[in-house]
Amino acid sequence: MDLSRLCIHTITTKPWPIETAIERFSAHGVAAMTVWRDALEGRDITAAGRQIRDAGMEVVSLCRGGFFPGETESARQEALDDNRRAIDEAAALGAPLVVLVCGAVPGQPLDAGRSQIRDGIEAVLTHSEAAGVKLGVEPLHPMYADSRSAVNTMAQANDICAGIDSPYVGVVVDVYHLWWDPELEREIGRCGQMGKMFAFHVCDWRTPTEDLLLDRGLMGEGCIDIRQIRGWVEEAGFDGYNEVEIFSNRYWAMDQEQFLERVVEAYTNHA
Amino acid sequence: MDLSRLCIHTITTKPWPIETAIERFSAHGVAAMTVWRDALEGRDITAAGRQIRDAGMEVVSLCRGGFFPGETESARQEALDDNRRAIDEAAALGAPLVVLVCGAVPGQPLDAGRSQIRDGIEAVLTHSEAAGVKLGVEPLHPMYADSRSAVNTMAQANDICAGIDSPYVGVVVDVYHLWWDPELEREIGRCGQMGKMFAFHVCDWRTPTEDLLLDRGLMGEGCIDIRQIRGWVEEAGFDGYNEVEIFSNRYWAMDQEQFLERVVEAYTNHA
Repeated sequence: MDLSRLCIHTITTKPWPIETAIERFSAHGVAAMTVWRDALEGRDITAAGRQIRDAGMEVVSLCRGGFFPGETESARQEALDDNRRAIDEAAALGAPLVVLVCGAVPGQPLDAGRSQIRDGIEAVLTHSEAAGVKLGVEPLHPMYADSRSAVNTMAQANDICAGIDSPYVGVVVDVYHLWWDPELEREIGRCGQMGKMFAFHVCDWRTPTEDLLLDRGLMGEGCIDIRQIRGWVEEAGFDGYNEVEIFSNRYWAMDQEQFLERVVEAYTNHA
Repeated sequence: MDLSRLCIHTITTKPWPIETAIERFSAHGVAAMTVWRDALEGRDITAAGRQIRDAGMEVVSLCRGGFFPGETESARQEALDDNRRAIDEAAALGAPLVVLVCGAVPGQPLDAGRSQIRDGIEAVLTHSEAAGVKLGVEPLHPMYADSRSAVNTMAQANDICAGIDSPYVGVVVDVYHLWWDPELEREIGRCGQMGKMFAFHVCDWRTPTEDLLLDRGLMGEGCIDIRQIRGWVEEAGFDGYNEVEIFSNRYWAMDQEQFLERVVEAYTNHA
């Protein structure tokens, strides 16, 4: 088993406090972690980052910033403040990247949302560069276009990054959101040519999916050809981690040690 | 209230037998109906069509055929047989159109699915032309790409129709499936130029959506700019009905007479 490129998100084993996740991931030979902000609540963030590295793992990213669109100027300002805090937290943790779930306001035209997203990223860019923390635009599945993200395809994420053109802004590819897109291979190639492939997330799409948010599958139990997409990402020059990000009421209800064993096995066989 | 272009799908008031739907839709001044096959079970289909017309309404289409992709040759043959039956039922009913939910096999590459969809449509085309019944390719939201349709954008539906190039094959536009697509306006225009805009379905996207299939909203209670999309469709030359197609556990649990009043009101104010 080659786990040298396996990263697991703290939210994948959400019932565990981060201390347990660090200890158990490390014991299984997991190489890296992405940390969700909820896992850091009440913790000394710098110490948490040190703990992860002391356990022999790398910190890949902090999840998440974003949610830039807002109906009012003050709502958008609040979002900018929160993104600057996320950048500071990533810097304290030693995470080189903040993942952006870009946001959407129900009823707002999606192109207006994308424009506010671009403005928002540009507004926090100085802060991001000063902190040495990159920003990763994660396109979300069109089923989240109402309230979570007006960026729903790789092409749109690439366009935003091309428009901003800073080495601090790139794209996060998540197979769950993008597997259906007929232009995915081409747009992954374009992203690679721009040097903007910042992260790669894996899980699977279950049939039937019983919850729009919290029914992601383990790699191999759904319809996504993860290895094909991973192949495209690697051909495009990406050599970072394969990050397992699973939100699942089903799996959070399991014994998390057994679930972690299944994650490692599914990663080895299907990702 | 101008209801002269209002069509309602039998499934919208699913708890009602078709006889009640005919009587109540007509009493409210609804101009037309689209009939789902489950509503015809155990009925004389020709008589049902006559009943609708005698009540002063037009039959717009029969829902639904499709589901062409299959893992085996025999599964695909069964699908063809079922589509021929759907065409015969539409002819008996006096419906000029069968709506196609094109199908998908979980784990089958989507381009292979689209290829089987095109082959399937071509295989039943002679039957369709002989019966004088058209076929409408309905692109479905990418959240149904696993098991319901490998056709997920207007561009893909247009491509399939352009490839087949028969006046009997066109596109069904449903705002629920397509509202998020950044290329929607352009592809609706292209569809109109090809003369392939066959039908237009409306409902709304609720936030939060609590069920992937059965939580569609009434027009006006969600995030879709229905009038904008209707405008594009009409600019593209479409002058058919606006069809209200709502699957909703929430609304099916209501008194259906009260629900029908809300449908008519929502149509008048938001579609």
